[in-house]
Amino acid sequence: MSKPYVLGVDIGGTNTVFGIVDARGQVVASDSIKTLKHSRFEDYIEDLHSEISRLLKANDAEDKIQGIGIGAPNANYYTGEIQSPPNLPWGTVPMAEMVSKAFPGVPVAITNDANAAALGEMTYGAARGMKDFIMITLGTGVGSGIVVNGQLVYGHDGFAGELGHVIMKRNNGRVCGCGRTGCLECYCSATGVARSAREFLEVRTEPSMLRNLDIENITSKDVYDAAVAGDKLAKDIFDYTGNIMGEAFADMIAFSSPQAIVLFGGLAKSGDLLLKPLQASLDANVMPVFRGKTKILLSELKESDAAVLGASALGWEAKYRAETPAANLAAGAPVV
Amino acid sequence: MSKPYVLGVDIGGTNTVFGIVDARGQVVASDSIKTLKHSRFEDYIEDLHSEISRLLKANDAEDKIQGIGIGAPNANYYTGEIQSPPNLPWGTVPMAEMVSKAFPGVPVAITNDANAAALGEMTYGAARGMKDFIMITLGTGVGSGIVVNGQLVYGHDGFAGELGHVIMKRNNGRVCGCGRTGCLECYCSATGVARSAREFLEVRTEPSMLRNLDIENITSKDVYDAAVAGDKLAKDIFDYTGNIMGEAFADMIAFSSPQAIVLFGGLAKSGDLLLKPLQASLDANVMPVFRGKTKILLSELKESDAAVLGASALGWEAKYRAETPAANLAAGAPVV
Repeated sequence: MSKPYVLGVDIGGTNTVFGIVDARGQVVASDSIKTLKHSRFEDYIEDLHSEISRLLKANDAEDKIQGIGIGAPNANYYTGEIQSPPNLPWGTVPMAEMVSKAFPGVPVAITNDANAAALGEMTYGAARGMKDFIMITLGTGVGSGIVVNGQLVYGHDGFAGELGHVIMKRNNGRVCGCGRTGCLECYCSATGVARSAREFLEVRTEPSMLRNLDIENITSKDVYDAAVAGDKLAKDIFDYTGNIMGEAFADMIAFSSPQAIVLFGGLAKSGDLLLKPLQASLDANVMPVFRGKTKILLSELKESDAAVLGASALGWEAKYRAETPAANLAAGAPVV
Repeated sequence: MSKPYVLGVDIGGTNTVFGIVDARGQVVASDSIKTLKHSRFEDYIEDLHSEISRLLKANDAEDKIQGIGIGAPNANYYTGEIQSPPNLPWGTVPMAEMVSKAFPGVPVAITNDANAAALGEMTYGAARGMKDFIMITLGTGVGSGIVVNGQLVYGHDGFAGELGHVIMKRNNGRVCGCGRTGCLECYCSATGVARSAREFLEVRTEPSMLRNLDIENITSKDVYDAAVAGDKLAKDIFDYTGNIMGEAFADMIAFSSPQAIVLFGGLAKSGDLLLKPLQASLDANVMPVFRGKTKILLSELKESDAAVLGASALGWEAKYRAETPAANLAAGAPVV
């Protein structure tokens, strides 16, 4: 018999946020712990377990959790592991197994943040009812979660959907954190926009409000504020960003022909400053057979809830339980 | 009860080839008709029906066909239509419906050539047992069929998988038949290699066996023969081709992280001339997390059988029957 709630856990570099979520996507209650309070992973799990248990008890939800979904950087759906993300100190850890042991009887599943965001949008948000769409998260980096035939695309190794790292500039591309050059993320993330600002200010000579700022610490928010105030150079930076994004989306559409591409994150709130040049570039660059078919949508999840909602959406389909290895295999659950 | 054979039908611009195929991928018997003998689509269907019926009767297979799979240019799995391909004169025609009416009781499914090739490879060939791979067909153009989670990627409109039309050169790209410039197909198809040869011969001054040929009619086969004979310029053309292909594959891997990319078609038979620069470029360009994980494989299907085998593979999962619209819906078959 299915139960009324799922638990969503979003593990970030600073906070781990968890919430009890119902089938309509309402966050019934939520709380958080500091992710890095404990240097030992076991201590972190113990803290997480006791705080979640307290939240469940306070909301009379201890026996009402259908599944636990976890979103984390470098999380692998297939192995249940978090695999040495740069911003967490634990190395590779068996996250799904540890959480499952802490909550016996409740199925657990884990995936990366962008995949969780895609599931959240499909379950509760802008992609409800869609079987083919792409989620693009525009934050410090560019993340992606791809849904095909109603299922997340994990790839053979669990790491599919790195669309922030398709190459947009094959010559003289910007250096990327992934070790290569010219990745989409170097241009279309918040930090990418800030890099563009520094580049534009150096190369161009016209006046700009941005010249009054400390150029080394300029942010995408500064560029946005200047553009809203009518600054021409700041607007050009958004044109430049939207143009590259449109080129990238055209190639993504040639791959999976999605019904929509859903944008999430700070930059997605730039409105027409970003969306107009993006749509124009997409129309100009997409293959004629796909022209006008793929909608560009904005996330419909409240930003403060989105991470927990996304993780929780995975809870509805979680199958893995540490205590029943044979049943896991039979259910097609990840073999942890 | 399942039946021992499927029927594969491959509709080409010149011939329509059809064959009876068993579960191990043996072509029990096959034959063909001229696709363009009849200008009216109805006459073509009548001819196809009578010739297939004759083949089935001659092989005592009339009641032994589990399903009919059809591969055709611009074929849409969801609508069952062939939608105005440039090389067929009929406009948009309801192919699945007409074939189903001709063979009552036998389920029919239809898809484009490259998707059929992918299914053929998954069912009988190099991708047996794989749930995530990409099929790339290197012919006059570059086609693709993408498999994710064991299923073909059709996209929301049935036209997904146009990987021959991702943009590889954003500046001064070659003009493509799709109406844009710089598509993969302009560089890595047989005609793309011939275009490279003309370009190299014009720009470079060194001697080459290729200079003895009529430059306007040079083919990829000419380039291959010259390279095998040790011609430096011809080898450089293969390096150039393989390099672009590796760059393109690196981006595809960032999307779906496939276990393998399977190559089919004339160019795929170029051996190390193509594969060495391709693998080197892939290794240099792929995101570190994917490096060394995705195999580059060659098709394992006999070229003369491949098209019929690919189409036939779709026959095993065909569900659509023109006479049972309600059952089609219930079975999740395409609504034609």
